[in-house]
Amino acid sequence: MTHIAPRFCIQCGSDRVAQRVPDGDDHTRDICDACGHIHYFNPKIVVGAVPIWQGKVLLCKRAIEPRYGKWTLPAGFMEENETLEDGAARETLEEAGARIHIDGLYTVLSLPDISQVYMLYRAQLADLDFHAGTESLDVALFDESQIPWDELAFRTISTTLRHYFSDRQTGIFPVRSETLRHPSTVKP
Amino acid sequence: MTHIAPRFCIQCGSDRVAQRVPDGDDHTRDICDACGHIHYFNPKIVVGAVPIWQGKVLLCKRAIEPRYGKWTLPAGFMEENETLEDGAARETLEEAGARIHIDGLYTVLSLPDISQVYMLYRAQLADLDFHAGTESLDVALFDESQIPWDELAFRTISTTLRHYFSDRQTGIFPVRSETLRHPSTVKP
Repeated sequence: MTHIAPRFCIQCGSDRVAQRVPDGDDHTRDICDACGHIHYFNPKIVVGAVPIWQGKVLLCKRAIEPRYGKWTLPAGFMEENETLEDGAARETLEEAGARIHIDGLYTVLSLPDISQVYMLYRAQLADLDFHAGTESLDVALFDESQIPWDELAFRTISTTLRHYFSDRQTGIFPVRSETLRHPSTVKP
Repeated sequence: MTHIAPRFCIQCGSDRVAQRVPDGDDHTRDICDACGHIHYFNPKIVVGAVPIWQGKVLLCKRAIEPRYGKWTLPAGFMEENETLEDGAARETLEEAGARIHIDGLYTVLSLPDISQVYMLYRAQLADLDFHAGTESLDVALFDESQIPWDELAFRTISTTLRHYFSDRQTGIFPVRSETLRHPSTVKP
């Protein structure tokens, strides 16, 4: 499991929340022994964009942990009642103060060790009116030769950028669906 | 919002959980006024498969609500610590007793009104050894001409099958990314 176990039942407030497999299920759940409520936790979607302006990519320097000071594509947790595309545009506006036109879904990355799925969209920057949001220290456009590969925040970001610059040589951008496992969990 | 509001704080058990926008946020959250814990809720991924055997599609007749008795592709909520492909295979095994080989991601459907994202994979049935799981009344293979279009459980399923039979004419199956809104929320 990757979630923080409930200390109290969200339905009745009891502290008798136990972890076991319910009848007819085959996954361990957090079950309230007082009222029977089962707390379900599921993977979260991280949605974001690869914003392009005249061949350059917009990156944000993180002003928050984890990976404070490292560079990332604008991305964050998808919110209720939005579409994937809405989420990608919202995160780009929040983190980079930038407006985008979405081209299409690009990378779909399962991160089973932390129960996240990244979904990043190719996009065109609408204009050069961007600025660092509250979660960013800086926002800047990078040529391929300028990408700070050793200062990128996450493997999801380096994986996406590597695919992008490779696919750009052909001009064909198929959806790239992959699994990224934490190195410590990969069996030799 | 689409989640059921917490009646008690999952961290401290207080019943003083209020819905408001936290400082520095722009979404309404469920905040505990006793301990300050913020309860986050995010969209859920429904993962599943389009299992094919000699041109026929495997469908399951639902033994559970909603849409009891209607036909569906094997699909369900993605679980923690699995990949999207693992989830598609697990749901197919659970609901149809069937093993599949995944061909690739096919439909990506945002359902903002219910905060779900469907991700369905094209797949080959490994063999004809399938049977109804506990959540299915029946499992069967359907030719295109036999698909019970009026008895399908969800629009996500009919949308995916329509794309599949259309794309099959060319043999090219691009990832189909769409938004499905509840008819009552679509402005004329």
